[in-house]
Amino acid sequence: MTEPLAQGATIGILGGGQLGRMLAVAAARLGFKTHIFEPGAMPPAGDVAHMVTTAAYEDNDALFAFATTVDVITYEFENIPTLTLDALEDHAPIRPGREALRVSQDRLVEKDFLAGLGLKTAPYADVPDMPALATALAQIGAPAILKTRRFGYDGKGQARIMNASEAGRALADMKDAPAILEGFVEFSHEVSVIAARGPDGSVACYDPGENVHKNGILHTTTLPARLSASQRTDAILIAANILNALDYVGVMGVELFVTPQGLIVNEIAPRVHNSGHWTQNGCAVDQFEQHIRAVAGWPLGDGKRHTDVVMENLIGDDIDRVAEIAREPNAALHLYGKAEARPGRKMGHVNRVQT
Amino acid sequence: MTEPLAQGATIGILGGGQLGRMLAVAAARLGFKTHIFEPGAMPPAGDVAHMVTTAAYEDNDALFAFATTVDVITYEFENIPTLTLDALEDHAPIRPGREALRVSQDRLVEKDFLAGLGLKTAPYADVPDMPALATALAQIGAPAILKTRRFGYDGKGQARIMNASEAGRALADMKDAPAILEGFVEFSHEVSVIAARGPDGSVACYDPGENVHKNGILHTTTLPARLSASQRTDAILIAANILNALDYVGVMGVELFVTPQGLIVNEIAPRVHNSGHWTQNGCAVDQFEQHIRAVAGWPLGDGKRHTDVVMENLIGDDIDRVAEIAREPNAALHLYGKAEARPGRKMGHVNRVQT
Repeated sequence: MTEPLAQGATIGILGGGQLGRMLAVAAARLGFKTHIFEPGAMPPAGDVAHMVTTAAYEDNDALFAFATTVDVITYEFENIPTLTLDALEDHAPIRPGREALRVSQDRLVEKDFLAGLGLKTAPYADVPDMPALATALAQIGAPAILKTRRFGYDGKGQARIMNASEAGRALADMKDAPAILEGFVEFSHEVSVIAARGPDGSVACYDPGENVHKNGILHTTTLPARLSASQRTDAILIAANILNALDYVGVMGVELFVTPQGLIVNEIAPRVHNSGHWTQNGCAVDQFEQHIRAVAGWPLGDGKRHTDVVMENLIGDDIDRVAEIAREPNAALHLYGKAEARPGRKMGHVNRVQT
Repeated sequence: MTEPLAQGATIGILGGGQLGRMLAVAAARLGFKTHIFEPGAMPPAGDVAHMVTTAAYEDNDALFAFATTVDVITYEFENIPTLTLDALEDHAPIRPGREALRVSQDRLVEKDFLAGLGLKTAPYADVPDMPALATALAQIGAPAILKTRRFGYDGKGQARIMNASEAGRALADMKDAPAILEGFVEFSHEVSVIAARGPDGSVACYDPGENVHKNGILHTTTLPARLSASQRTDAILIAANILNALDYVGVMGVELFVTPQGLIVNEIAPRVHNSGHWTQNGCAVDQFEQHIRAVAGWPLGDGKRHTDVVMENLIGDDIDRVAEIAREPNAALHLYGKAEARPGRKMGHVNRVQT
């Protein structure tokens, strides 16, 4: 696919959570239809999609049927099984491409990739098994963070190691999954850059937002972030460097620690990102539409912010505050239509425009 | 229904065009599902709705089945047959209520209603049949505009009468449908107020936008409009007067002519309105969400504009300009996913944020 996607074309989306839902709305705004592929029943994205397939990622017949209805395929999460991609890629282009998934599905591969680009990361060491743990601890020291190489998100699959004696137990708790040990980084705050790249190599970045986490989950993103002009430039150059190295197509979230020694890359996510939700009320083209534009081969929005915004996630019981938030002036609610509010579950977010 | 509608509830929408589509997206943003009832196949709103019923407005079985799936019913256009409402109203509340439809479905009733509130309108006279035409012409004079009492929109069902001799032919062209004759109003420009009222009687208005028409169809709406402070106040008082008199629930569009003698009401529309599309990129709560909030018994947004906007409609072949508009900075596209671009057909709009 080299031509821009035409009006009325169908975009397939793997994953039917809130990111898929907001991608589907953005696609509709550009005149595209969407087809959601999601194993779980009644996915949030299903309410706003043209079609929904409910099937496992291992169901090749369902994958094939899905692929034949779509013009291009994208996804809302990075942990898509490799075999799923194998089954799809002969039928429709997958954007972002497989290299981005390969790199971001594995923390060790990702760290090696970033280091290979000359970017700063936290010090890290491979922990393939229990015997390697002692070597890693000797190299990195404590305190440190032990993380599974795969399937971690929102603080899951992580353990803080305050001293070496805790390390063995932490790894056992992870059922000896291949892991890495990361050194602590002394940072003043975290920012993230939401960056996009089109099939023609054009790159556009939103201004970095400043993130605050609570219980390992993003709590707020504030625009503008506390950054000097040169830090802003660095953040954008780092993101562009990563996108170009991956020949990336789509939106990526790049989390950065701000330290006196410069910006350190925490992690990358090859998809629209929670820390970019503020763009829905701050920019003419938000991150979801930007991703759809990139995937569809359309011109990218320039990322300019017309209004300052503070985004707050609504997690679990926070959904009970909706009636109160609806009374606030300047509060733009974005709820995900999830039936059940469980602790730690992302139920929605609110963008407070700063006027 | 006196309690606010709960998360996950379903809103039924009569009509599946672009207004229904944008209402469905707004409903999803608040965690509601939508069910579209529309006679035409593949309606634009169907791409972003939870359910679609394709059936005639006279199909009582389909109406009944629809009504049993929804918690409240609203609509995207005012010309809903009375019998349709009869079939629905025992099963679910219809908002806005029938009085608003009764008044706005008939130009004569609407004019009498407005005049009864002490509001200024164009001079008008009833033309029930050909013999009444002469009396009306004697009263109103020429030039004037002959309009069918029912089913007119976007300049349809209207004829300019430049001199009395043309009048008989114009009425004959309308197949002797009951009509009214309206006198010309000398106005400098047209503005419209998008106003909302909740079931508790609370009222919120957006700042008036300034409208420019082309070939009888809205071309642009510009915020802010050219109005003095007292004209702004008048516009809002007029709109609130109308909403309160109808015990209205939902969003209404009120078109006003600006004249040296004050504001003159052109017409009212008991629904979200094309001249309110700018709110999607200018306000935390746009007119579509505002309508859903009113219909759902939620608190209304305050209508505050955080960014100036110029809205331009994309009509017919204008859709071919999308690739070019997508390259503009500050342009937010909203396309309706209509397969075929016919002359005069609304295909989308673009909100240009003014930064």
